[in-house]
Parts: sequence; C-alpha cells; structure tokens
Amino acid sequence: MKTYNLALIPGDGIGVDVTDAAMKVLGAVAKGRFAFETTSFPWSCEYYLKHGRMMPEDGIETLRGFDAIYLGAVGWPATVPDSVSLHGLLLPIRKAFNQYANIRPHRLLAGVEGPLKAEGFDILCIRENTEGEYSGAGGRVHEGKDNEVAVETSVFTRAGVERILRFGFEQARSRRGHLTSVTKSNAQKYSMVFWDEVTRALAAEYPDVTVSHMHIDAMAAKMVMAPQDLDVVVASNLFGDILTDLGAAIQGGLGFAASANINPDRSAPSMFEPVHGSAPDIAGKNIANPIAAIWSVAQMLDHLGEAEASAAVLSAIEAATAKGIGIRPGLNTTDEITAAVIAALEA
Amino acid sequence: MKTYNLALIPGDGIGVDVTDAAMKVLGAVAKGRFAFETTSFPWSCEYYLKHGRMMPEDGIETLRGFDAIYLGAVGWPATVPDSVSLHGLLLPIRKAFNQYANIRPHRLLAGVEGPLKAEGFDILCIRENTEGEYSGAGGRVHEGKDNEVAVETSVFTRAGVERILRFGFEQARSRRGHLTSVTKSNAQKYSMVFWDEVTRALAAEYPDVTVSHMHIDAMAAKMVMAPQDLDVVVASNLFGDILTDLGAAIQGGLGFAASANINPDRSAPSMFEPVHGSAPDIAGKNIANPIAAIWSVAQMLDHLGEAEASAAVLSAIEAATAKGIGIRPGLNTTDEITAAVIAALEA
Ligand SMILES: CC(C)[C@H](C(=O)O)[C@@H](O)C(=O)O
Ligand SMILES: CC(C)[C@H](C(=O)O)[C@@H](O)C(=O)O
Repeated sequence: MKTYNLALIPGDGIGVDVTDAAMKVLGAVAKGRFAFETTSFPWSCEYYLKHGRMMPEDGIETLRGFDAIYLGAVGWPATVPDSVSLHGLLLPIRKAFNQYANIRPHRLLAGVEGPLKAEGFDILCIRENTEGEYSGAGGRVHEGKDNEVAVETSVFTRAGVERILRFGFEQARSRRGHLTSVTKSNAQKYSMVFWDEVTRALAAEYPDVTVSHMHIDAMAAKMVMAPQDLDVVVASNLFGDILTDLGAAIQGGLGFAASANINPDRSAPSMFEPVHGSAPDIAGKNIANPIAAIWSVAQMLDHLGEAEASAAVLSAIEAATAKGIGIRPGLNTTDEITAAVIAALEA
Repeated sequence: MKTYNLALIPGDGIGVDVTDAAMKVLGAVAKGRFAFETTSFPWSCEYYLKHGRMMPEDGIETLRGFDAIYLGAVGWPATVPDSVSLHGLLLPIRKAFNQYANIRPHRLLAGVEGPLKAEGFDILCIRENTEGEYSGAGGRVHEGKDNEVAVETSVFTRAGVERILRFGFEQARSRRGHLTSVTKSNAQKYSMVFWDEVTRALAAEYPDVTVSHMHIDAMAAKMVMAPQDLDVVVASNLFGDILTDLGAAIQGGLGFAASANINPDRSAPSMFEPVHGSAPDIAGKNIANPIAAIWSVAQMLDHLGEAEASAAVLSAIEAATAKGIGIRPGLNTTDEITAAVIAALEA
C-alpha cells in the first residue's frame, strides 16, 4: 500500500474547521486503498502575531519534501492586513513551487440550487497562478502627500503564459474540446495583446480544440447569461480570481468551490484549498460548509494518482447533497455534512 | 428656449443604428422643452482605413466646444484591432475631457426578465474612467523571443482616486446612503492598498454614508448572489468595467445598460454612450436593442439640466418595456422599439 506524506496548513478561521472535516473524509476513503501521514503546520495570522512572520524562514524548504499540501484558509484582517498575511503564506507557496495552474471546477452539485435560472453548466476554470497582475511589483511615490502616485505592474513572461495555455489546451482536449481565453486586449495593449498572440500561436498546435477569445468584461456577463456555452476557461491570475468567485457564486456559493494549485511537471508539491476565505464571523461554530474543502481532497487524490478514490469522494459528496444535506447555509452543521459524506463513502 | 450643441459619433456597427434611434427619441422629447443641433462626425474604423487614424489630429479640440458628446459604439475587429480603435477614439476622449466618472445604473426595467432569480436590485456603479489599469503604460521586451516579457503598469494618483470616491460619496448621499468601494488590496499591495487608504480618509468626511470595502472577486460573486444589498459601487477603471458588464448581464443584457462619462466640474463636455459594443454580426439589420442608447440620452438630459425631460424619457422606456416591447432579443425591431418609446413620450 502506498503512503502519502501530506503537509496540512489549516490556517485561520474556518480554514481550521474545514481542514478537520476534509481529513476525516480522507481517512474514510483511504481505508483499503492507501495510507497517509499528515504533518500539521500552525502557520496563520495567530502565528504572525507571535513570530512577526506568517511562516518560518525555512517554511518553503520544509514543505518541499511532501507529496502534497492541503491548506484551509488564510487571513484574519482584524489583526493582520490581508496584504501581509497572503503575501506571507499563500502567494509565496504558489510561486515557490511553480503551482502555476489553479484549477477550479464550476457546476451545480445534485440538489444544489444556484442564483441563476440556468442550470446545466460544467466549466473548468484554469487560472494562471504565479505572475501577471499579482507579481507584487510596484511602489508608491510621495506617500501620504497630495501628489502621491501608486503603481502596480503586471508582469507576464512568454514561458508563463505559454505553459498555462498549454495546460488549458490539454484539459480542453480531455473534455469537450473547447477553450476560451480571457483577456482585455482592447484596453491593455501590452500584456493582454501579448497573451492573445501566444494563444493564437498555440491554437495552431491544437487543431482539435476550438478557441474563443473573450474580454474579461464580456466573459463575466457570459458566466451569468449563458454559462452552459463554456467548457475550459483560461485566464490570468487576476481575471481567473474574479471568474472563479463568479463561478463559485453560480454554483451556489463559496461553500461549493474547490481549488487545486497544481505544479504539472511535479518538480514540487501541489497545494489543495477551497476557494473560500477564513470567514472570521463563523469560525469555530461548526457551521462552515466543508463541501468545497472535501471536493479539494478529491482533486488532491486525482493529482496523486488515486483516480478511483477521487471519484468515490465526489460521488459521496453528491450522494449527500442529492439528499439535501448541506445545500443551503445554516441547514446542517459542519459535522453533519461531513458525516453524511463519510456515510455515503462507506455505504 | 435653450439650444444644445451636440457632437454625435455614431462610430461602428450597431453604434450607427442605436445613435439614430436615440436621436429620434431626443427629437420627440425636445418638443416644447428645448432645442438642439447635432453635428455628426464619421470617426470610426472605416475612417481609420481611409485616414490611418480614428479621428483627425484636432479631433479633441473640435469636440471641446460642444455641450455634450453622444457616442454609439467603436470597434470593427475584423479590420482594425480593438487595441487600436479604442486607444484612438473612445479612451482618449474620456481622458482628454477629464470624464473621470463613468456612471452606469443597473436595475431591471419593468417587464424585463433577467438571468437571476433575484429581482429587486438598484445599483449605481461609478467607474473611474481616466487612469488605473487603463493608463496605457507598459511595454514588451525581447518581443517574439522565448524570453519575452510584457509589462502593463496601473497608475493611480491621489487626485484621481480621491475625486472618483468623492463623487461616489455624493451619489450615495443622494440615494440610499451606502457606498461599496471595490479593490483587491489583499493581492495588489501598492495600488489597491492606496485606494483603500484614500477611501478610509474620505469616509470620515461623510459620516452619513456607510462604507463597505470589498475585493473584486467577492464583489463579482455578490452581484450575482445578493445584488439587492448594493447601492452605490465605486471601482477602478478595470474593476468598474468588469462589474458593469456583470451589472448589464443581471439587468437582462447589454441592450439595457446605459452609461455616462461625466466631467463633474464641467470644464469640458461629457460623453454618453451605451455600454454595449458595435456588434458587427447584427449591424445594420434593424435588430439592435436601442434601449441602452435611449437610456443614455436620459442621462445626457439629466447632465444638461433637463431633469424633467430626462425623467420623461425613462418613463417612456419603461412604459414600452412594461408592455413587453424590446424585452427579449429578436422580439422587436430597432424601429419598433424606438417608435414605442416615442409613442409613450407623446401619449
Ligand atoms: C486570498 C486571495 C489572495 C486569493 C487570490 O486572489 O488568489 C483568493 O481570492 C483566491 O482566489 O485564492
Ligand atoms: C471597449 C472598451 C475599451 C470599453 C472599456 O473597457 O472601457 C468598454 O468595455 C466599456 O466598458 O466602455
């Protein structure tokens, strides 16, 4: 039996609650299939308040040896500004381990009612995860003065754009053969025109994939007006961030939105985390929806090569939601939802 | 009787169709109220193909003397890249005339069914219109090579951020007293942290306005999950662009989304244009929905001080849509919808 070494970073707020739930489900699905060991790291805003940093100086090196990283959520804005907590933990991990493909599936689980009248959609968003608008390059001049100027520079490299698009083309090939590349090349004439050019060049290598180019504004509208027309969507760091929250919304809320930060060449561990944040207002109350977190476990298993276990987790989630468990906020506790998924797994 | 001098730029595609419709309605509402003269400029992609530029060198100076500018739509990507046509016409006008406040109302007109289950929302989006992510600053290094890098720099000035937020606070005061400022300060630590600081400083001057800070991703989700919670929304150039297309979507489509590019200190003309683009595929077929364009006329009248005429146009639009005219694509021709609005005006 294979043994996986997993690093856990429960993080802040409901990150802790849902990591706990996710690990219970992992324990249940592992039975008879594989073994795993977890090492939990307390890196969080609480850690920051004690140590002045979100993780130890050698945090990245510590994580490097694991087969995968599972993260709950990061952020506690009342004590640590998000710009500090995220740049100190989540974003550096994504970059350091070249987890350049952030994969987020958007569809309605059985029994879940979304805010749209439209229902039959199945979108796979692939978000560039290491550069672009989140490069962290920029500065402020004349700080605090009337003439202050703040600049923030998006940096796109050919290698960075090419690899995420290539990943998207491969995914499209394994799904319904359609890829939508999202830019804003009518207004951002350097970065986004460049992205469009790379897309066009790659499209020639994938004649079996049909390609649409859309601007981010039109795309946001499309996700609401005609989500059923979309298959694989590839977007920059910022645009992917926006579209995947929108995707979470149309699938019924952040409680259902899973996410995998993948290093496709496996030169370093990948990281799995629900899209939702730490939700301080409901933290520790046993009411957070763990479904997104559990779905992220399914993504992790798939990445580790445990396709059958991954499918079992997804079926178990839908067996629970089909019965109405966890389909609306406040309906069930975190524990109840977790138990229902485990019961379905064991049935 | 007052006489208004209006510059018309019908532009490309359905821009021509809807400008025509809008001017018919303007003619009808003017009767007995005010006079107007229009001068039409053929600046468009067709013009570009003949002259190598979207407008003459003195285009901006030519427009400066008018009381207002009315624009249909710009762009014909089959012959002129959008990055050329928009940076050659629409964007320079917004910047040159300091039309820093782009105002876009989002609500369901009577009779119109949107894609959401939610119905009772009334949002006023205020988009910064002159700087930020559309500054046009950037470049490409090692062009065409493997090591190519493209950079695009967002530039935010204190004066620019302050004036748009101040405008938003004033609007909130005249509405339901709530303002949502949209940033992404957890990931863009220079520009967006700066924007948040300016918002906080101004909030102290408007104790009667309640302020929410939201990240663009969460905000996109909110527009779909709970749009009824929103009143005035203030956002940067890019974020406002995205949110207003999303706003257009939830109000039933781009055919209903009006837009005013306002210079609040009136040192130069303001410009009015529907949010939609030139839609080459349906151009000249008498099927474009002119309601967004007509609503933009109402915004223009309001700006010119013709509040009563503005209200009359809006009521006439809703009298038509309440009867089912123009509420779905393909239901009525452009002419039929225009005639129904005029009939309601004259009734
Ligand atoms: C917390 C934040 C920095 C993060 C992001 O924007 O990447 C989150 O919104 C996400 O989507 O994973
Ligand atoms: C055409 C494009 C440059 C423009 C913009 O993004 O400003 C349009 O989308 C809009 O919203 O007015």
